[in-house]
Amino acid sequence: MIPAAILDGILHGSAAQQRRAIAKAITLLESTRADHRAQGDALLTALLPHTGKAFRLGISGVPGVGKSTFIEALGLYLIAQGHRVAVLTIDPSSSVSGGSILGDKTRMEHLSVNDQAYIRPSPSSGTLGGVAEKTREAMLVCEAAGYDVVIVETVGVGQSETAAASMTDMFVLLQLPNAGDDLQAIKKGVMEIADLVVINKADLDPHAAMRADAQITSSLRILSQHGNPENSRHDKALWHPKVLQISALLGQGVDGFWDAVSQYRELQTANGRLATRREKQALAWMWERIDAGLKQAFRQHPQVKNLLPALQQDVAAGRIAASTAARNLLSAQSGQALSAIE
Amino acid sequence: MIPAAILDGILHGSAAQQRRAIAKAITLLESTRADHRAQGDALLTALLPHTGKAFRLGISGVPGVGKSTFIEALGLYLIAQGHRVAVLTIDPSSSVSGGSILGDKTRMEHLSVNDQAYIRPSPSSGTLGGVAEKTREAMLVCEAAGYDVVIVETVGVGQSETAAASMTDMFVLLQLPNAGDDLQAIKKGVMEIADLVVINKADLDPHAAMRADAQITSSLRILSQHGNPENSRHDKALWHPKVLQISALLGQGVDGFWDAVSQYRELQTANGRLATRREKQALAWMWERIDAGLKQAFRQHPQVKNLLPALQQDVAAGRIAASTAARNLLSAQSGQALSAIE
Repeated sequence: MIPAAILDGILHGSAAQQRRAIAKAITLLESTRADHRAQGDALLTALLPHTGKAFRLGISGVPGVGKSTFIEALGLYLIAQGHRVAVLTIDPSSSVSGGSILGDKTRMEHLSVNDQAYIRPSPSSGTLGGVAEKTREAMLVCEAAGYDVVIVETVGVGQSETAAASMTDMFVLLQLPNAGDDLQAIKKGVMEIADLVVINKADLDPHAAMRADAQITSSLRILSQHGNPENSRHDKALWHPKVLQISALLGQGVDGFWDAVSQYRELQTANGRLATRREKQALAWMWERIDAGLKQAFRQHPQVKNLLPALQQDVAAGRIAASTAARNLLSAQSGQALSAIE
Repeated sequence: MIPAAILDGILHGSAAQQRRAIAKAITLLESTRADHRAQGDALLTALLPHTGKAFRLGISGVPGVGKSTFIEALGLYLIAQGHRVAVLTIDPSSSVSGGSILGDKTRMEHLSVNDQAYIRPSPSSGTLGGVAEKTREAMLVCEAAGYDVVIVETVGVGQSETAAASMTDMFVLLQLPNAGDDLQAIKKGVMEIADLVVINKADLDPHAAMRADAQITSSLRILSQHGNPENSRHDKALWHPKVLQISALLGQGVDGFWDAVSQYRELQTANGRLATRREKQALAWMWERIDAGLKQAFRQHPQVKNLLPALQQDVAAGRIAASTAARNLLSAQSGQALSAIE
């Protein structure tokens, strides 16, 4: 059942063989054919013991913040230090537009041609959940092939930030020194999950950057006050979200950024939170996929398909209560009278 | 199938008969027995044509903000104007603590003994979704009985605000004039869904109240800038979230509050948004209950129950990929090999 050639290529191939094997593995995992899916699952299970050694870094920011420039600078910096870097992308809009705003390899001209880098555009399969699943699986494949820094990049226009944060060890938010941007990030729940906030293009207006720095630092402090008591700011064994100013274009601040990432990694490894985070992520991910599968099976059920259009109209028109309609549809799927939901 | 005595009591009873009939209807709707549930659904369907004429007002705020005092003042004000007022509560913590922080009738001494008021503490059945479902159904029962203002109150400590907003025509956030409270509200996504923000206890520190007013007004403006283009602030046919200062204890500002609510109601009725909001709420509610039912059936499936403990351990320990485990469990429930999820 396991595609042995692909497995061998990923684990033991030369750099060029690995690239080809990774591409084949990802194609297999993205296939909707049941036999491919079974092979893909067998492959994943065989690869799993070789995963988990990479550092997983999520990077998010709205279009125009300079993500590509920053990731290219960071990637080249890391490769110069002996790392191997994979860049994966979550961009659910790519399945709508047919092309990823983030996936274009020409965005990172120097990094994309580097032997030690692997850049994969966003999968274009349907929902955010589907896109995120493929990205998560691609991440495992890259880790098994020995990439020791995996960057999961996402465009800051939806819920994709949460997806990226939910598969990485550290989540970084790139911000511009613009007034109000921090409120937008708070509103979307992104500020709250950021382990590090980076103000990019700080060189363009140093005063604005200082103001943004102070504002975000204050926001992070206030957000943490009423937050999870586990994240008390007074415990030195815990990481407290930081704010950094950089200029990716001028190459300023990338080393400071990586210092901060390394500090975070050491601290969170020592206090056990990195391992806990990964465990929770894996379980949450399992349930997320179960939910998606349940909904899909429900919508495809013949009886549900029959009843749904008329019931939706009845609910919208107020002829039947929403909860009654839900119970009727659930009974139709299960083929029996349902007792009350929870 | 329809419990005729209850139906008749709700629609045609005296005030005292209505109260008893409402209590019986809610008991029926909260029962987990399948026959009760079927009777409850039949009752709801029979009541539906008599619902929808009330104004549904959601009110949220953290403990200590003065919700009870405000709602009592508002309720008595409305009754003096000839309205009949129902106060329902969503407090998921009541199922954990065994007693509702919000449900105590003694909180509203004068309102609770008034003939024209109906106060119902939070149902204490399990999850937020379950609690919200019962509240939504109780709301329909009260509307059919002729209560023309239904207040859905919630404590601001979780996701219950979203539930309250999702069943009301207007969602009001009560705030204290404290620095940082607005950021907490933005973080929780509550500021974004507020149609009106009320700063209570403004008399205690008028300067702080003015600062909070300016701060929240600015936050609301920034949040709306990048929001849904449908909510453009320049369209006079649309409602723009407002900030009001009141002192519920001194009885100051209740009339101004109701003026703002009435303006909102007139505008949103005239531009058609009230009807659209209710339609969307009903459909979203149906899907929410379907999701809850699907998850419940999944967790109760014998094969899933068998496999789940070991698979969860395998996923947490990294022996099997989360997506593979999800597919295995879904196959176990459906009794067949599943094709790929979405």
